[in-house]
Amino acid sequence: MRKVDLASRSTLQARRMGIDTYRENVVYMHAECEVCRSEGFESQARVFVSCGSAGIPATLNVITSDLLRQGEAGLSDVAWIALNASDGDELKVEHLPPPISMSHVRAKVYGRQLDLAEYKAIVNDVVAGRLSNIEIAAFLTACAVDRLSPNEVASLTEAMLGAGERLTWPSEVIADKHCIGGLPGNRTTPIVVAIVAACGGVIPKTSSRAITSPAGTADVMETLAPVNLNLDAMRRVVHAEGGCIAWGGSVALSPADDVLIRVERPLDLDSEGQLVASVLSKKAAAGATHVVIDMPVGPTAKVRTREAAASLRSLLEASAARMGLQLQVIETDGRAPVGRGIGPALEARDVLAVLHQRPDAPLDLRERAISLAGAVLELTGIAAEGAGSAVARQTLESGRALLKFERICEAQGGMRQPGLAAHTRTFVAQDHGLITTIDNRKLARAAKLAGAPRDATAGITLDVRLCDAVEPAQPLFTLHANSPGELAYAAEYVESQSGIVAINERVQIDETKGESP
Amino acid sequence: MRKVDLASRSTLQARRMGIDTYRENVVYMHAECEVCRSEGFESQARVFVSCGSAGIPATLNVITSDLLRQGEAGLSDVAWIALNASDGDELKVEHLPPPISMSHVRAKVYGRQLDLAEYKAIVNDVVAGRLSNIEIAAFLTACAVDRLSPNEVASLTEAMLGAGERLTWPSEVIADKHCIGGLPGNRTTPIVVAIVAACGGVIPKTSSRAITSPAGTADVMETLAPVNLNLDAMRRVVHAEGGCIAWGGSVALSPADDVLIRVERPLDLDSEGQLVASVLSKKAAAGATHVVIDMPVGPTAKVRTREAAASLRSLLEASAARMGLQLQVIETDGRAPVGRGIGPALEARDVLAVLHQRPDAPLDLRERAISLAGAVLELTGIAAEGAGSAVARQTLESGRALLKFERICEAQGGMRQPGLAAHTRTFVAQDHGLITTIDNRKLARAAKLAGAPRDATAGITLDVRLCDAVEPAQPLFTLHANSPGELAYAAEYVESQSGIVAINERVQIDETKGESP
Repeated sequence: MRKVDLASRSTLQARRMGIDTYRENVVYMHAECEVCRSEGFESQARVFVSCGSAGIPATLNVITSDLLRQGEAGLSDVAWIALNASDGDELKVEHLPPPISMSHVRAKVYGRQLDLAEYKAIVNDVVAGRLSNIEIAAFLTACAVDRLSPNEVASLTEAMLGAGERLTWPSEVIADKHCIGGLPGNRTTPIVVAIVAACGGVIPKTSSRAITSPAGTADVMETLAPVNLNLDAMRRVVHAEGGCIAWGGSVALSPADDVLIRVERPLDLDSEGQLVASVLSKKAAAGATHVVIDMPVGPTAKVRTREAAASLRSLLEASAARMGLQLQVIETDGRAPVGRGIGPALEARDVLAVLHQRPDAPLDLRERAISLAGAVLELTGIAAEGAGSAVARQTLESGRALLKFERICEAQGGMRQPGLAAHTRTFVAQDHGLITTIDNRKLARAAKLAGAPRDATAGITLDVRLCDAVEPAQPLFTLHANSPGELAYAAEYVESQSGIVAINERVQIDETKGESP
Repeated sequence: MRKVDLASRSTLQARRMGIDTYRENVVYMHAECEVCRSEGFESQARVFVSCGSAGIPATLNVITSDLLRQGEAGLSDVAWIALNASDGDELKVEHLPPPISMSHVRAKVYGRQLDLAEYKAIVNDVVAGRLSNIEIAAFLTACAVDRLSPNEVASLTEAMLGAGERLTWPSEVIADKHCIGGLPGNRTTPIVVAIVAACGGVIPKTSSRAITSPAGTADVMETLAPVNLNLDAMRRVVHAEGGCIAWGGSVALSPADDVLIRVERPLDLDSEGQLVASVLSKKAAAGATHVVIDMPVGPTAKVRTREAAASLRSLLEASAARMGLQLQVIETDGRAPVGRGIGPALEARDVLAVLHQRPDAPLDLRERAISLAGAVLELTGIAAEGAGSAVARQTLESGRALLKFERICEAQGGMRQPGLAAHTRTFVAQDHGLITTIDNRKLARAAKLAGAPRDATAGITLDVRLCDAVEPAQPLFTLHANSPGELAYAAEYVESQSGIVAINERVQIDETKGESP
């Protein structure tokens, strides 16, 4: 048969559109384009785009205006980078065959238990972008609630682990801690790392930036020292000081997790198996052997009930055991924020106050950090059973934790002092009574509207704690922002919400002592 | 408290980007835009865009180049139309609160049965675009396989029905037929409508265009007469002739179904409940009271096994009964295509051959149409029980069906003759033996590569049927295309596939008797 050169028919010239579509590869082709017409491509079609030896799956958007010239194909920013394209490069656009792992996803939808090879196929397709967001959403839904067995969680974890970098360290015992989350201000990590490293432990901590919260640990730590460490820098810091607090994003641990979380977030499904695989894969990828999990339990935390906590704990323990990971879960009070600050710099100030043992340091943050550090010291055998908290407390009170923290900051590139926002507004109690509830989610939202974490100094400081007795006009909390507009925006949200800080079961919020400065 | 005018901060000037994103509303904002920065918007965020009194949910894409000027916000084509925007109109972009119906979707993920009000909330959010594709995918997955009870199917159907137009007709008995699909060339509808209407039945048929297949009934009919009838035109044709074959897209029946199908397609989940709700809502919306379902069963059809057929039949019957719809399911042979042609014009030629009783008319198409028309005649009481097929056959053989069909075509705007493609290539048997299998899916794919349905004359004609004995060099099937490139493209696919037409269990395809003209 006479061969036809099909390649020539489907070649277009690359053009960077300058459109940020986050992680979704998008290719833009003109409706009148020869390739579009002959392939029968329609908008939102899944296609395969290649440029030289690089190729990516992408979603098609059809251009109906003059944004593209004849013979051009545009690429979104992420696609441009993935293809390492230059203006005018030859692009080839073809139909994308359905990803093979979708048959495994369908099997899971039918309720079948998947094996390691099937989870590996799914995870590899997730990382390579071969599964669309719609297909990933179906996978996450099929795994939601309690539909993953401990064996499946272990398989999914191993698959996620295999799809990214895995750090190794020249010690047999590598400590780590992780917080299940949902509690603003619960910034124990820098203190725990300082205490454990000061006691001779090895704790190479990687932390995340905020996704939905007003601050991630990496955002907080960045107001105190650089956190964008590559693997070599991390090794150097940990070799010298025993610990670090780095941004996990620079070292590509469990890249599948990043994609899954981004799709899962709007669905807000309680997916135990997914959560456990996410946590354990990140810890194992960081090289941890002994992990303490901080699990805050409270009606507006991520884990809302005792029953949910017990179920999640048992899945964490069973899955960790299958992976040979030593793991201890500590349930903590998740009814209200920890410390005073919410937002990167404001939380960093709390951390420094505890390390410096200032009289006004938040007691709850201090006690939580001591108890978690104590658990790490016991789990890793540095302290005898039952003696962990005492050792941790002594390390903090002797000033050795502060010294270690300062040395870690210097090793990471130099210690900094967190700033302060230019504008504040304080909300005060209207009546007297007892503080009965504080809504973590609404406080977090208000802190984000004030600019956190994008603006590191923005956020909220809490002036009261649960069960405090308050008088009329007594400050409840203060908004911090760097522009009057942002301050007003966050304040408008606060005023529209009831129950952010509730006194004697009733909402008691009133305006204010004016703006400073 | 001093009120701040927040509206003024978030106003941008509308600009049409000329980007077709199909049904997904996309708003484009510059990364440096004041609104983007102050709201903390990130790419892919879900936002609410308003323009005057109109407002739509949309997905944000961030522009990092000079495609937008300061103070401008771009809109994708569908968003532009939905907002009825003009260049320079003031747009307001705000955070989109999570849709309330997502809590019902989550309840369904947890395995709870939803009630009518909950399905209505979900369907209304689907139609209004408040649920993203990711959220719709989670809903479809939670409903997949057999997770909808007959009560839930009835509720979902009623909800879908309530979200669109519903046609009414001045007769008590309104007939309809529907094919579950997956069988190329199974184009009985024009023949069935002609026979039933010729017998005095009322059958206002709305049909779809192809989504994934080489031809929908509307595409085939359009080669014979106009099908884009509005409601008035449909009423006029049905009043005059008793039947019509119109494109359902012009009358907005069950718009929720259109959105759900588009998300479901790439997932390819066998979702009985969804399928039944889709079919029944479309039939009820078209005003049907008596419906015959053609359900082809075969390994490469949509329904693949007897068990799947039995299960789907019982759900269809139970759900229809709850809605007061008379429904009969006819299981048909789904092992191979029906008729000779695959593609709009080629299938229309088969339809005309049957109506004209030409000696070369495909027998299988003729017999299937007679049997389905007979079932409709019996179900609607036009023919006595057991006499339907005989009446249908007599109506066809007397020429009354042809006459009725021509009158319907004239009433729809004038009868046309289907064309023929300029280029063909025939594939022949390499060996002698019996035709054992024909792969519906691969044939459909080849027909699409040749240009169908975009190009109405493109497609395939089959020269053999299952169980035919063939000799070496005997034609098996012929590709039809309007350019040598498309012909080559489809031919390359055919040559790369095994088992499209299998002889004695082995693949037997060879080249060819050359190209004509």
